[in-house]
Amino acid sequence: MEKLTHFNNEGRAQMVDVSGKPETVRTAAARSSIEVNDHIYELITNQQIKKGDVLAVAQVAGIMAAKKTWEIIPMCHPIPIKGVNISFDWMEGSENHKILEITAEVKTVGNTGVEMEALTAVSAAALTIYDMCKAVDKGMIIGPTYLIEKTGGVSSSDYRREME
Amino acid sequence: MEKLTHFNNEGRAQMVDVSGKPETVRTAAARSSIEVNDHIYELITNQQIKKGDVLAVAQVAGIMAAKKTWEIIPMCHPIPIKGVNISFDWMEGSENHKILEITAEVKTVGNTGVEMEALTAVSAAALTIYDMCKAVDKGMIIGPTYLIEKTGGVSSSDYRREME
Amino acid sequence: MEKLTHFNNEGRAQMVDVSGKPETVRTAAARSSIEVNDHIYELITNQQIKKGDVLAVAQVAGIMAAKKTWEIIPMCHPIPIKGVNISFDWMEGSENHKILEITAEVKTVGNTGVEMEALTAVSAAALTIYDMCKAVDKGMIIGPTYLIEKTGGVSSSDYRREME
Amino acid sequence: MEKLTHFNNEGRAQMVDVSGKPETVRTAAARSSIEVNDHIYELITNQQIKKGDVLAVAQVAGIMAAKKTWEIIPMCHPIPIKGVNISFDWMEGSENHKILEITAEVKTVGNTGVEMEALTAVSAAALTIYDMCKAVDKGMIIGPTYLIEKTGGVSSSDYRREME
Amino acid sequence: MEKLTHFNNEGRAQMVDVSGKPETVRTAAARSSIEVNDHIYELITNQQIKKGDVLAVAQVAGIMAAKKTWEIIPMCHPIPIKGVNISFDWMEGSENHKILEITAEVKTVGNTGVEMEALTAVSAAALTIYDMCKAVDKGMIIGPTYLIEKTGGVSSSDYRREME
Amino acid sequence: MEKLTHFNNEGRAQMVDVSGKPETVRTAAARSSIEVNDHIYELITNQQIKKGDVLAVAQVAGIMAAKKTWEIIPMCHPIPIKGVNISFDWMEGSENHKILEITAEVKTVGNTGVEMEALTAVSAAALTIYDMCKAVDKGMIIGPTYLIEKTGGVSSSDYRREME
Repeated sequence: MEKLTHFNNEGRAQMVDVSGKPETVRTAAARSSIEVNDHIYELITNQQIKKGDVLAVAQVAGIMAAKKTWEIIPMCHPIPIKGVNISFDWMEGSENHKILEITAEVKTVGNTGVEMEALTAVSAAALTIYDMCKAVDKGMIIGPTYLIEKTGGVSSSDYRREME
Repeated sequence: MEKLTHFNNEGRAQMVDVSGKPETVRTAAARSSIEVNDHIYELITNQQIKKGDVLAVAQVAGIMAAKKTWEIIPMCHPIPIKGVNISFDWMEGSENHKILEITAEVKTVGNTGVEMEALTAVSAAALTIYDMCKAVDKGMIIGPTYLIEKTGGVSSSDYRREME
Repeated sequence: MEKLTHFNNEGRAQMVDVSGKPETVRTAAARSSIEVNDHIYELITNQQIKKGDVLAVAQVAGIMAAKKTWEIIPMCHPIPIKGVNISFDWMEGSENHKILEITAEVKTVGNTGVEMEALTAVSAAALTIYDMCKAVDKGMIIGPTYLIEKTGGVSSSDYRREME
Repeated sequence: MEKLTHFNNEGRAQMVDVSGKPETVRTAAARSSIEVNDHIYELITNQQIKKGDVLAVAQVAGIMAAKKTWEIIPMCHPIPIKGVNISFDWMEGSENHKILEITAEVKTVGNTGVEMEALTAVSAAALTIYDMCKAVDKGMIIGPTYLIEKTGGVSSSDYRREME
Repeated sequence: MEKLTHFNNEGRAQMVDVSGKPETVRTAAARSSIEVNDHIYELITNQQIKKGDVLAVAQVAGIMAAKKTWEIIPMCHPIPIKGVNISFDWMEGSENHKILEITAEVKTVGNTGVEMEALTAVSAAALTIYDMCKAVDKGMIIGPTYLIEKTGGVSSSDYRREME
Repeated sequence: MEKLTHFNNEGRAQMVDVSGKPETVRTAAARSSIEVNDHIYELITNQQIKKGDVLAVAQVAGIMAAKKTWEIIPMCHPIPIKGVNISFDWMEGSENHKILEITAEVKTVGNTGVEMEALTAVSAAALTIYDMCKAVDKGMIIGPTYLIEKTGGVSSSDYRREME
């Protein structure tokens, strides 16, 4: 049985030693979403068409959060991120609702992967959209949030979510 | 049509003026979850019984993230949080999976609500669990994440999610 | 001769005690600017017309920096900011150049003023514009940066820059 | 037996609710020290006489750390600090050594005390002195570090260390 | 026409991928200034002669801000700074005024330059001086702020401001 | 006489240039302690046996503080930490007291050592224990705090505290 690699011999949490792992190019992509009612959808997209600001602020929030991942997730290593891109896609939701899909791609050259940075980026972007629209409706639903792809590294093989 | 309160006259983002709103006791509760396979479930709960650490680290992460919400969400006001509590509950998931429900309750006395603090706390707790278990399986799914209750304040009525 | 209020009896720096000052509504407005060549001006404004992003990112940067002022300026008190607004205005500059004027207005209810928050906000917004355009030209000039107005508080009278 | 107030019903950590406690003026004073060899003592004090910088940097570090206490200590409430003062005093140490006593006084108006802010301030100041002098000798000893006085608040009486 | 390198295909902001750029030694130097009246000049320099503290605090602020540049400027990459030096120079200003010139030199080994770190350092130092002297006069003027030199890197040639 | 390496030519503080030093594996170990009365000892250890939380929170605090060292200690270089481990050991103290020994081991690959990261980690862990137990007794004593071992690097030889 694999042991959880973040525990030291006493069973307590530790930041695992990655100094022996090679520095390679590593990428990760994660996805979240937020379901909003049609009213909010129209407000965002009309603003977006004119000024694009709700999504612009969410994008900045996601990028800045990716850089702060090691401050938010206790056992994460500080990683010098080399690139982040966040993109949005509107989809049909439940009745009278639209779903905004949020995707973050993160890249680094380092000893450890950037899965957490990608997941943190999409989470912060989704929370920012909630924050900016909550005066209209507090019933928005964030997620599911998950990893869609990971490349690089030798301790674990590349990962790609099987879409059924 | 309500206007999005975070936009200034040019349609750009701003941090809205809440100085005229009364200082009242305000609470919010939010929920997220993470679905893990039975293997991870056993690893966490066995650790939990012995040392309780995965959830302990997640709990600390959630509390610390609640305090940093204004650093993560661009238009959030800095709020002097007066109390945070994070609790966990295991439930059945899809086949061979368990779902860990994460609930955060946040309290303050201030001009504006703590919905974002509660949502950020559960998000950070879920991300921390993902981080600590991802060496075993990267297919964990976080969320949905949503507000379940909000009290206090006068600009909007109290909120409670209708459970159908 | 007034003594510099940030020094303690040994002549070293201290964070001065403001606990005896009344909590009042306080506002401050500051201004900075950045002079860019016509080429950058066109790139920004064309982007701005289509998507508005250089200024949108600068605006987010300014608002977030206002909240972090106490982390950047050593003797600043942590202040619960209640509102921030950042606006832009293009003006003619030297030959083949345009000047983007940046104004920040900050509001709080507290024991001490928000001059530093307004000055920090415009500085961060200007630096962000420099960052986003420096691949085109590194010769951009930021500032002058100065306080234009301050209201509230009793230890010093309101301030308004005399425009000659 | 008193229960540890930072634990919730599951025995896990929480940030305790202080919203019901009155806002009063609260002060705390803490002390740490660092023992250095005579060589470092002379280097610091000669610099101090001429430019005063080792202690000046330590003082800034202590003040800035006081403001960040809630980011460093997980269960600490964010507190709007109203004043901080850090002072130094040289004393005889063991043979060929001097001891620099570091004292921090912190003041706030709030629901909870500032003991941790004072203790964090002196710790950061001592660590900074270690950092700036470690190229000369790594054998410096920090501490003991302890609370010397606390006033304000109603849930616990004022505290003053009995000096024997 | 060069495109602004910080925009992704949708025209939104992104943190550009620098993982393919070589790690080289990179330096940057930036300058800002603050104009103060003769009264403040005397207060600072008298303190400076005795204890040096206004400039000492500003210097610490500048160095610490250089390290935090990636937290303040949204699209900046986190860069492991290898060295920072900040120096001051007094010059004649307008009638009854002196100008304090502030210069920051920053060095790293990395994929991307440190122009923003140098510009942020001088900005934070200037803001700190404003903060520490504003009780005497709020009319101080910061800047102009600009890059004076940049070396290293291959995507753009070295830069040196032409002094006319 | 060695000069303090953190001072520039004007005698002011600077972050020294380490870009010419080789990147090597570097480790450091530091120790602190906290003396608590038997009552607190029992409360912690009973909790520890059942849920282990006081020490679990302290451990998370220590690890997160190690990552933030460069934000707390002004002249510290930002260092990409590769691993941190914190362990605890109970010992007899003065009458009716126990001493909790706290040890942190930190590892990196870089141009400069991680002594400050190890010292900061144990300091934050000790402060966290103080914070979580101070409702029972404010007389706890932290430290002494000191470096016990350092390896790697070429500018200074390895260090190991001589235990007499």
